[in-house]
Amino acid sequence: MNLKIKKDVLLTNLNFVAKAVSTKNVIPVLAGIKFTLEKTGLYLEASDESIVIKTFIEKENISEIREEGSIVIPGRYILDIVRKIPHEIINIETDGLKILITTPSSEYNLNGIEASEFPDYNLDLVKKPIVIDQKNLIDIINQTSFAASTQESRPILTGINIKFSEDTLEAVATDSYRLAIKKLKVDSKIEDNIDIVIPKSSLMELSKLLEEENKIELHIFNNKIIFKFDNVLFQSRLLNGTFPNINTLIPTDYTLEVTTDLNNLYNIIDRTSLLSDTDKNIIQMEITDNELITTCDTLQVGKVEERIIVEKNNNNNLKISFNAKFMMEALKSFDGKKINLLLTNETKQFVIKDVEDNSLIQLIVPVRTY
Amino acid sequence: MNLKIKKDVLLTNLNFVAKAVSTKNVIPVLAGIKFTLEKTGLYLEASDESIVIKTFIEKENISEIREEGSIVIPGRYILDIVRKIPHEIINIETDGLKILITTPSSEYNLNGIEASEFPDYNLDLVKKPIVIDQKNLIDIINQTSFAASTQESRPILTGINIKFSEDTLEAVATDSYRLAIKKLKVDSKIEDNIDIVIPKSSLMELSKLLEEENKIELHIFNNKIIFKFDNVLFQSRLLNGTFPNINTLIPTDYTLEVTTDLNNLYNIIDRTSLLSDTDKNIIQMEITDNELITTCDTLQVGKVEERIIVEKNNNNNLKISFNAKFMMEALKSFDGKKINLLLTNETKQFVIKDVEDNSLIQLIVPVRTY
Repeated sequence: MNLKIKKDVLLTNLNFVAKAVSTKNVIPVLAGIKFTLEKTGLYLEASDESIVIKTFIEKENISEIREEGSIVIPGRYILDIVRKIPHEIINIETDGLKILITTPSSEYNLNGIEASEFPDYNLDLVKKPIVIDQKNLIDIINQTSFAASTQESRPILTGINIKFSEDTLEAVATDSYRLAIKKLKVDSKIEDNIDIVIPKSSLMELSKLLEEENKIELHIFNNKIIFKFDNVLFQSRLLNGTFPNINTLIPTDYTLEVTTDLNNLYNIIDRTSLLSDTDKNIIQMEITDNELITTCDTLQVGKVEERIIVEKNNNNNLKISFNAKFMMEALKSFDGKKINLLLTNETKQFVIKDVEDNSLIQLIVPVRTY
Repeated sequence: MNLKIKKDVLLTNLNFVAKAVSTKNVIPVLAGIKFTLEKTGLYLEASDESIVIKTFIEKENISEIREEGSIVIPGRYILDIVRKIPHEIINIETDGLKILITTPSSEYNLNGIEASEFPDYNLDLVKKPIVIDQKNLIDIINQTSFAASTQESRPILTGINIKFSEDTLEAVATDSYRLAIKKLKVDSKIEDNIDIVIPKSSLMELSKLLEEENKIELHIFNNKIIFKFDNVLFQSRLLNGTFPNINTLIPTDYTLEVTTDLNNLYNIIDRTSLLSDTDKNIIQMEITDNELITTCDTLQVGKVEERIIVEKNNNNNLKISFNAKFMMEALKSFDGKKINLLLTNETKQFVIKDVEDNSLIQLIVPVRTY
């Protein structure tokens, strides 16, 4: 392999694939980035086994392709070197497994690994991918992923369930104490019903690479999904198992509907939780005639009471307890100014939604404190 | 105690003393901030035993002093509450050891501790303090502290040695592998020779509170020092023991003087160290006819060679090895564009100084690599 390439072009692409470089070093070759130089351009590929990221730099963006070839270069070193080199153009050439990186005033020799040792991830695509806006995918990830479980005891709950049926996408995440549901219309008409669970961790990595303006293709297989955008392929494994059926979980009637300012509610919960037990994070919320009062009373520390004026749809009053952190994360997922709380009683899960927009629903299960 | 005070005024002062609040919780009362409200104003005081910080809010800056008194309030909670309260004015009143903090829409009850349980740090001042610019003290701390030891095996080296004699201040820090010396003229004429060692950790905390424009008073005692600036007292213990005599350590003649651009040298050392063993961080530097070449060759990883053009005062050539991290920290302490390296041989400590300014000297002991 032998090429001349602009530092900026290489760095941008290295930064993409570096997100997949394995830092755990179980398999040495996965701590590297596979470079494959062909007549048409340069492929970079990295994987931590859970995800695979592959980018392509077209020959038009490479200053000179002198000799095709492929090799695995240690990820940490090549990234640091390219980032810190002050010159505009970098030469990279290989001699067996030796990699020589040169600029007019410096010379780096790195030890590479045979390209054939890098796992062969089949990144073939389907013929008719689903196409959505990157912006929509970012929203889905930001508005649901926090509700997914972080505990491996029920692996399926560490993923985000994504279903397509006709022209609707539904994303659901739950750790069984709370639930986030996001629905949106998609342009492409989906022929088959699709029902997959993507690891939350993969989607979090993916969202770091996305930009708001462009489209993204979803190529869905039995046990994996490939996202294609710009010159990048991003593959994630899928989780096996049955995701809980959420249709029975959303309450259909309520005893009380409260309308309140989103930021004010967030802020009083934030302040009330200052005095809560840091492990459990439980606070109380009481709806009285025209006020919403949050309280917390922690032995040793002290107690707090915060209040805001709210609107109600009837004269019912109610008192419930919940995890303040869960509530704050749910509230943070909304963009609007006003939200509704749809409450039943002190044990039934309650609903949070925007007053005008039904596309996002957050559900929280209260905590019994008596 | 009962007062009304502007949130911003209280928060600014709480942020100051919070730097001294003990987070290790050995003595419960030291996790608190002592409030002492007198006719003249409000004192706030906190300590982690190593340092004490006390601020004073004059009565002119307090909205209403209703009842004098004193109490210790849990530091973490009072700081979070005051920071997050959205109202402009806060009421604080005590009832025995209960603390009540109120705003128009909220009520916080905290459990306090008897003020008499807070250690009585005598913060009396001397009659004739030494006065210097805060800017100068910040420079001293930034330009020397990194060279102090972090290892408790020789406690005296974890401090910065400060000497005053007549109109000169000399600050020295060393971990025995490198040494930083900063000298500056002070306005006040010092009558007694002063020679103290202040813990680096205290000075690092102090530097976070300093602003560039104002003066600072140094009140020096046998076993402690009090810094006074604005409305703040900052006390630190002093370290006992004899600080190494550095006069014999600074080489007086050299075999080679190299003049080079500061940033270029820093950058090639930074890049060369990318391939160094992360624990030891050792790289080689060779001075040839008109070049300075840095190299590093690490088994498994690879090797690197970087070069810049330099000026020399004679035809001598030289090759030495050193800790790249030490060298980079030393180089970072200079503001100018060009520096001199004063070298003797591959084992003798070498000097780094600005080409024009002799007030700061950095010394580094080479590493033998053969």
